[in-house]
Amino acid sequence: MDGVRIIEIKKSVFENNDIDANNLRKELKSKGVYLLNLMSSPGSGKTTTLIRTINLIKDKLRLAVMEADIDSDVDAIKIKEATGVDSIQLHTGGMCHLDAEMTRQGLEGLPLEGLDLAILENVGNLVCPAEFDTGSCSNAMILSVPEGDDKPLKYPLMFSVCDTVIINKIDVMDYFDFDMERCRRNILSRNPKARIIPVSAKTGEGMEAVAQWLLEEVRLWKAQKA
Amino acid sequence: MDGVRIIEIKKSVFENNDIDANNLRKELKSKGVYLLNLMSSPGSGKTTTLIRTINLIKDKLRLAVMEADIDSDVDAIKIKEATGVDSIQLHTGGMCHLDAEMTRQGLEGLPLEGLDLAILENVGNLVCPAEFDTGSCSNAMILSVPEGDDKPLKYPLMFSVCDTVIINKIDVMDYFDFDMERCRRNILSRNPKARIIPVSAKTGEGMEAVAQWLLEEVRLWKAQKA
Repeated sequence: MDGVRIIEIKKSVFENNDIDANNLRKELKSKGVYLLNLMSSPGSGKTTTLIRTINLIKDKLRLAVMEADIDSDVDAIKIKEATGVDSIQLHTGGMCHLDAEMTRQGLEGLPLEGLDLAILENVGNLVCPAEFDTGSCSNAMILSVPEGDDKPLKYPLMFSVCDTVIINKIDVMDYFDFDMERCRRNILSRNPKARIIPVSAKTGEGMEAVAQWLLEEVRLWKAQKA
Repeated sequence: MDGVRIIEIKKSVFENNDIDANNLRKELKSKGVYLLNLMSSPGSGKTTTLIRTINLIKDKLRLAVMEADIDSDVDAIKIKEATGVDSIQLHTGGMCHLDAEMTRQGLEGLPLEGLDLAILENVGNLVCPAEFDTGSCSNAMILSVPEGDDKPLKYPLMFSVCDTVIINKIDVMDYFDFDMERCRRNILSRNPKARIIPVSAKTGEGMEAVAQWLLEEVRLWKAQKA
């Protein structure tokens, strides 16, 4: 299938990413586009979770997806085939994260004027993406049950910059040494305000809560004065 | 438990990491210490696999472990408690990888003169650690079944720099969409010479092959002229 656009992201020239990220957030606000930055380890189920979520919300708002990856375009194709929404692939050229300028390069590939929500699926990595503000309106992450409930202890920054933690693959909880209560405590020790949503993107369990959370986020943000 | 030493790694001052890594390899050769650099995603089971492996080989050679992490010392403690071998924790201070100088800082915490094998458990990350030669004699990685068989397509450099890929958590293969033959093809497309060892560190299946591989690696390397 050749139905997705691939954008080769260039290295950022801005020295001060925080300033650039704030500028991007203002631009998005003026356009009325909510940008969600979704992060996780490789293999946590970001794409499957996105597909389920998009199919639950796509009739309620206009959205598009940017799939960032070192290489390959399998994710953007999957999203487009499974949901029908606009999906573009961002190639980072080996880089381990996106910053605000790289995100802006991606956004230029989307029809921003008509959108309510743009979702950035960041590079699969629990370290570097947490260090760079992409200009998003909020950060969310997916932690999957097989990765273990101790990850907030080992990747503290990632868990402290995320407002929402989706715990995926709860359908296989019985096969892993994963304690949901211990996991909650570990997440909240890094970010006491974190919203935690357990799901199985495979079976669909809990996905309605993800859809409700995202719809409400966009609604509240749109209702705020710029 | 306060039985493990924690080393706070400082940022490297060497500009040319490749030269520094080659120097470290020569130093290790002169001391007769084989250094293995073990990489993976967060939560692939590096520590559990190491514990199983160490308990199978610790009577046949003298070894020690360096556990690199952004934060926490749970892994070094686990290794020491479960195997009795020397284990130190390296804190990277937020850095996403180790280079040769950072590895040297860790090695200085080990009793090198008496060792045959030092194992570096790198930061859980499929991107950045692949870009930096640590000075190791070989690179190995663990890919776990829940992460998916497409990871070699998405993280090409990691799979091309590793001589050995251990595929962990095969005990849960029935619960995931993971095809071992497709995975092998994907790995070999990145590195046609890769050795692939499927295991379950949880049940012990396949772990004898890991032990034999590592013992043989160290024996052959020691038999080579410096």
